[in-house]
Amino acid sequence: MLNFQMIKWMKDLFPICRSITGEGTRKTLSYFEKLNPEFKRIKFKTGKRVFDWVIPKEWNIKNSYIKHSSGKKFAEFKKSNLHVVGYSKPVNITLSKKKLLKHIYTQKNQPTSIPYVTSYYKEAWGFCLSENEKKKLPNGNYKVFIDSKLKKGNLELSHAILKGKSKKEIFFSTYVCHPSMANNELSGPVLLNAIMQYIKSNYPKRKYTYRFVLLPETIGSIAYLSKFIKIMKSRIVCGFNLTCVGDERTYSYTCSRNGGTLADLALKSALLEIKNVKKYSFLERGSDERQYCAPGIDLPVCGFSRSKEYPEYHTDKDNFNVVTQKGLMGSFKIMKKIIDTFEFGIYPKTKTLAEPNLGKRGLYSTISKKGLHDEARKLRLNLIAYSDGKTNIFKISKLLNISLDRLNQEYKILKSKNVLK
Amino acid sequence: MLNFQMIKWMKDLFPICRSITGEGTRKTLSYFEKLNPEFKRIKFKTGKRVFDWVIPKEWNIKNSYIKHSSGKKFAEFKKSNLHVVGYSKPVNITLSKKKLLKHIYTQKNQPTSIPYVTSYYKEAWGFCLSENEKKKLPNGNYKVFIDSKLKKGNLELSHAILKGKSKKEIFFSTYVCHPSMANNELSGPVLLNAIMQYIKSNYPKRKYTYRFVLLPETIGSIAYLSKFIKIMKSRIVCGFNLTCVGDERTYSYTCSRNGGTLADLALKSALLEIKNVKKYSFLERGSDERQYCAPGIDLPVCGFSRSKEYPEYHTDKDNFNVVTQKGLMGSFKIMKKIIDTFEFGIYPKTKTLAEPNLGKRGLYSTISKKGLHDEARKLRLNLIAYSDGKTNIFKISKLLNISLDRLNQEYKILKSKNVLK
Amino acid sequence: MLNFQMIKWMKDLFPICRSITGEGTRKTLSYFEKLNPEFKRIKFKTGKRVFDWVIPKEWNIKNSYIKHSSGKKFAEFKKSNLHVVGYSKPVNITLSKKKLLKHIYTQKNQPTSIPYVTSYYKEAWGFCLSENEKKKLPNGNYKVFIDSKLKKGNLELSHAILKGKSKKEIFFSTYVCHPSMANNELSGPVLLNAIMQYIKSNYPKRKYTYRFVLLPETIGSIAYLSKFIKIMKSRIVCGFNLTCVGDERTYSYTCSRNGGTLADLALKSALLEIKNVKKYSFLERGSDERQYCAPGIDLPVCGFSRSKEYPEYHTDKDNFNVVTQKGLMGSFKIMKKIIDTFEFGIYPKTKTLAEPNLGKRGLYSTISKKGLHDEARKLRLNLIAYSDGKTNIFKISKLLNISLDRLNQEYKILKSKNVLK
Repeated sequence: MLNFQMIKWMKDLFPICRSITGEGTRKTLSYFEKLNPEFKRIKFKTGKRVFDWVIPKEWNIKNSYIKHSSGKKFAEFKKSNLHVVGYSKPVNITLSKKKLLKHIYTQKNQPTSIPYVTSYYKEAWGFCLSENEKKKLPNGNYKVFIDSKLKKGNLELSHAILKGKSKKEIFFSTYVCHPSMANNELSGPVLLNAIMQYIKSNYPKRKYTYRFVLLPETIGSIAYLSKFIKIMKSRIVCGFNLTCVGDERTYSYTCSRNGGTLADLALKSALLEIKNVKKYSFLERGSDERQYCAPGIDLPVCGFSRSKEYPEYHTDKDNFNVVTQKGLMGSFKIMKKIIDTFEFGIYPKTKTLAEPNLGKRGLYSTISKKGLHDEARKLRLNLIAYSDGKTNIFKISKLLNISLDRLNQEYKILKSKNVLK
Repeated sequence: MLNFQMIKWMKDLFPICRSITGEGTRKTLSYFEKLNPEFKRIKFKTGKRVFDWVIPKEWNIKNSYIKHSSGKKFAEFKKSNLHVVGYSKPVNITLSKKKLLKHIYTQKNQPTSIPYVTSYYKEAWGFCLSENEKKKLPNGNYKVFIDSKLKKGNLELSHAILKGKSKKEIFFSTYVCHPSMANNELSGPVLLNAIMQYIKSNYPKRKYTYRFVLLPETIGSIAYLSKFIKIMKSRIVCGFNLTCVGDERTYSYTCSRNGGTLADLALKSALLEIKNVKKYSFLERGSDERQYCAPGIDLPVCGFSRSKEYPEYHTDKDNFNVVTQKGLMGSFKIMKKIIDTFEFGIYPKTKTLAEPNLGKRGLYSTISKKGLHDEARKLRLNLIAYSDGKTNIFKISKLLNISLDRLNQEYKILKSKNVLK
Repeated sequence: MLNFQMIKWMKDLFPICRSITGEGTRKTLSYFEKLNPEFKRIKFKTGKRVFDWVIPKEWNIKNSYIKHSSGKKFAEFKKSNLHVVGYSKPVNITLSKKKLLKHIYTQKNQPTSIPYVTSYYKEAWGFCLSENEKKKLPNGNYKVFIDSKLKKGNLELSHAILKGKSKKEIFFSTYVCHPSMANNELSGPVLLNAIMQYIKSNYPKRKYTYRFVLLPETIGSIAYLSKFIKIMKSRIVCGFNLTCVGDERTYSYTCSRNGGTLADLALKSALLEIKNVKKYSFLERGSDERQYCAPGIDLPVCGFSRSKEYPEYHTDKDNFNVVTQKGLMGSFKIMKKIIDTFEFGIYPKTKTLAEPNLGKRGLYSTISKKGLHDEARKLRLNLIAYSDGKTNIFKISKLLNISLDRLNQEYKILKSKNVLK
């Protein structure tokens, strides 16, 4: 099902050279717009002010390499788009090895990996090599060739609204601005698109409205916020920034700035029965939760990831050895659990004062005898006891230390038996 | 004094076969109504709707047994009223041992005890035997005889209001629906009646109003709430459900649903200096605090017990080996301490700004010398420091980690010396 | 600089015999009034009611001793003014050693120390000796001579207001009522005067208003409050009672009554990076925070000390072996840190929505590469993230676990670069 598609989508998109602007990102957005036609493209022109920032020039690149006087090529863009520093200006010169080396980036502590480097806001050029390759560069002169363009253009992003009965929104955001990397790029967008498809097929008549955005990190979310902050602040009740959601190593979440939002509570309870969960405070944030939770923005948004920290991060090793369909499906299931919970209802409320008569509904043993009070019965009574219409099911889950799945299952029974609404 | 009476009352009432309705419960209520004539009987007719429940038929029983074809009788009601399943319908048939066994209940892990079993809301019949007795039942046919009646009648309960200067109420509730068991039945009612007598004789001019109810568990408290919830919600500031208050093993309390009520604070501080105290969260509630703290009811009520969990619970072993006058008096003293505190005043307030001059009142050494600052002086100053008229004495007790008795003693001194009001 | 003066001031004032009233205290106040001419004297007449207290008679003493019939003198006032019990009435009698001993005070567990003893509110007389001296008193009769006077007069204190742009006040209080002791007397007043000089020279145009008081402990602060409580309650946002601030042993603070005030937060964060800090709950208060935090007074005041508990306390050993210029300067730096923080601004606020573009301001690497995220950059982003204009810098310091100095340094940079206001 969805899992095969996620990996397929990723493999389709992996080779494309994305950046915060340019053809690669446009292609990527178009691909997802076909999967989910509800997406609408939004463009911000180069030079436009968005809060404290200015939309940069659009960057496009066709080719790049360095060529030794012997004719041997190194750092060929066509072999890996990580070889060129993102946003490198066009270059076509010959220089000494010594001078070239000032433009070479490596990751010394990971000598076989090509690091990922960018310079969006200051014109520069450079190449990324593995430390081992760098060591092998022969002496002599080099031709440096970067066939790129920096010109006035657009920063583009796509967003979609799936309307529900309520104007209250659940928000999902992820980014499309990294070249060929798997976990820290494509895992987020494919999960977001899978979530969209899931909601459309499972909840054609939705309770909540859902907002989705695919955008370049930082500048993209800032641009988007500058346009929609008012409506977002008034409608979003729970949101997640999806990043690095495709590995199988752990589950992680990054708390919102002041904690305690529906997003924080939902994630905590959705991860309750999972053992290997890493909680990051807002002080350890890294992605667009930086913008969504900034002072004055203050959206109820958490970061959700499998592994936030992993050795392959920001290198060419972040590939399909890191991301698997199992890993992606793990993330999908957590998000699905939260969506299902919202759609079923998150504020259970008893329909009667005092305890309901469960026996007459077949929900309680009619014989009273010591030892019959099993865990199932205890859970049933405890869920009812906290169903005051004000305590959300995520809080109840934490209070009872019962997984969201188990609690929702019980909630369903009690709703069907007219005990809760 | 009161302790001898409590045990005497219990012994008078122990043999009676009580249930949620019927003559046994009526007799029990009448007994207490003689001890405390302020009690008034309230009746709910069979079939009446109370919240989500319906008052069941009235059950009465004269005799029951099973008789082997040899003439030997087993499970004789006249030997123990626990032998018959509560609310058993009338039966007079002969059947095989195999068929009979389907109606026999035992407590396998306590093979010498007769368990206590009921089936209030579904017509059934059955007998309770010790596992050892059951094993000894000879082969052959048995006559089963239950001389009971299930008919339209009443569910009855008694309540009493002792009016005080304030309409604010302290509430005590316990149940009268179990047959011959001591801790999990009669200990609560006799304690409640002792409390009533104590208040009347010690506080004829009361500050607070006191509400007392003796009722069948669950259905009784639900019926009572259905009639009085409005007034109870507007007046009750602190309440206790008394159950299993007669053993000497430990002290226990069950927190209210959201905790932090005056009842929670009062019990915590009254038990402060006692070592063996068990705190149960609301998730581990078992008795009528289930109703008093249900969503929408939300009364400030805690459960108070000596042992909530003990092996003799709900068997014929719950007798006067478990309940003692010492055990009952232990519970009485805790409740007395709380009542005395309320009647003396729970919001101490200084009568002057800044520290009072204690020296001129003989409450402070007039010589100032290092090492004279003893614990007594420290307590005195600390009580004054928190007497802001808003912090109740239970909170102060917790804050200072000083027993309620010691604190009240100091409060009395400071009130008499015009330092506090 | 200021440190040399503090020790010099202390040495000038050390020999004077101070008490809660009298010439010694007057001289001490005059001395400080020369250092900081903003001080104004306030007098309360003997017999005047101040809240629950009455201003006592004024006490003055010229000389005192006990003289053995052999002519040998003991406990000579001229050798140490601690030898006479404070507020001793005039005496000129001869009595037996046995009768004399009832008026002799020693500190048994510190046999070489003269204890400090007073009897302000009950007329009495007495002498303080070291336990060892007492043991050596020869048998026989003694002449007891105390050349003191108790007469109607004044209790005096000095206060000063350094006006700032805002009427909101930072408050400093300390006491001038102990005879020749160093840490538990003069360290507080000299620190307070150094603080005053610091504020005047460094902040001639102040943001906040500062209030300073030098007064006799307890009766002085009560008298002062009785006169100024209204204005103090409406203006003081943060205050410190300074006592025992001159040793090098540790740093201590005493929480305000309910905690969580700006004073509590400021002290906690100012002491964050210091290892040997002792926190005292309000239950362990000892000095004028007793009055400033009393119910109904409720000023946001904490106690600040180096060592609150030390063996030399209230003996003649509390001298310049205990107090050093290094110790005083340690205290000064903590107070300076808090003042500097208030004057720079305690509510940082971002000037833009979403994260500011730090790169264009030279505050962020323009090259993005894994491993470049150092602590400095993390701190910068985290300070910005909590600069919502509502969270004070002391709270942010605790939240980020970053010293106030480091945080202020960063705040300065971000203010200068127009990121924060």
